[in-house]
Amino acid sequence: MAEITAQLVKDLRERTGAGMMECKSALKEANGDMDEAEIVLRKRGIASAGKKSSRVTKQGLIGTYIHHGGQLGVMLEVNCESDFVARTDDFKELVHDLAMHIAAADPQFVRKEDVTPAAIEREKDIQRARVIAEGKPEKVADKIVEGRMGKFYEEVCLYEQPFVKENTLTVDQLIKTKIAKLGENIGVARFTRFKVGGE
Amino acid sequence: MAEITAQLVKDLRERTGAGMMECKSALKEANGDMDEAEIVLRKRGIASAGKKSSRVTKQGLIGTYIHHGGQLGVMLEVNCESDFVARTDDFKELVHDLAMHIAAADPQFVRKEDVTPAAIEREKDIQRARVIAEGKPEKVADKIVEGRMGKFYEEVCLYEQPFVKENTLTVDQLIKTKIAKLGENIGVARFTRFKVGGE
Repeated sequence: MAEITAQLVKDLRERTGAGMMECKSALKEANGDMDEAEIVLRKRGIASAGKKSSRVTKQGLIGTYIHHGGQLGVMLEVNCESDFVARTDDFKELVHDLAMHIAAADPQFVRKEDVTPAAIEREKDIQRARVIAEGKPEKVADKIVEGRMGKFYEEVCLYEQPFVKENTLTVDQLIKTKIAKLGENIGVARFTRFKVGGE
Repeated sequence: MAEITAQLVKDLRERTGAGMMECKSALKEANGDMDEAEIVLRKRGIASAGKKSSRVTKQGLIGTYIHHGGQLGVMLEVNCESDFVARTDDFKELVHDLAMHIAAADPQFVRKEDVTPAAIEREKDIQRARVIAEGKPEKVADKIVEGRMGKFYEEVCLYEQPFVKENTLTVDQLIKTKIAKLGENIGVARFTRFKVGGE
């Protein structure tokens, strides 16, 4: 039996708007599992599907950038550790610069680790065929493919791309200079890019 | 053998930036399949992974809305049929109103048809348990569940929600008044909503 802490009850109340005793009882039934407890409350008719405010656990900002008269848009979330840093001009400038960068450079993933295995396989396949088409000897083919994968990551991962406003820096390096300056860990949580009529 | 039309070649050129003869040859090899032809070009070292501008087939606008000092953001795409309508104040107002509505009302899907079968099953399950907990007779349970599903769609689907600025209208009805006024089909293609530290 999991312990139902005051913190858990508080979190469930924030999430569902239900009363303290109702939350306590739902958590007991769900053995301390927050998502399950929310379902229990909904089954009892206490919480509703619409109310679904996930608890904020990080600080940061949501930034947007609109280009070409509303034909292209970017939205991203950048996290830091404190509300104080999130409100500095330096942090705001970083969020704005990153949104603009994403609009221009069209990355597909945030970091190298985020590239899907399927995307890696597809790319390796293409590069292998290309190396063979170029008539390179079989024994150096794998080395060449590996080298070209580095280029691929540079093309599709936000953190690996050269920063559009100052292309001697990668985006990763740009973020690191802000981390050094502001003294807090900073990271891009997610981004999305819409183009009218696009994917 | 698929016919390689001038339009196909033009589309592939727009998409990859490759030359006309290269595109023609790649399309022949891919038997007219655009995605395949792009891979052929990449295998030949002609097109690059970064260049991936999907062809714009619709008109419209991307809209954004930022709330709570950058703690909440919404981005959406609204389509219409002509560039002319996309530039009218009426259309811009609709896009802005919808972005604000999404920030406030937090829909999960665009239309009823977009609700996933898993989400429907999960909700029916919750409502069935709730009806039973209320001690309603078995034979009316299904009817009550069906009734409550209507309420569920109203809570989670953008088109079914009451418009926040004028709740005698649904969003669907709001869009229909704009369609009538502007004389073109108008529809929400997609939206996304970011909250700092959220899902």
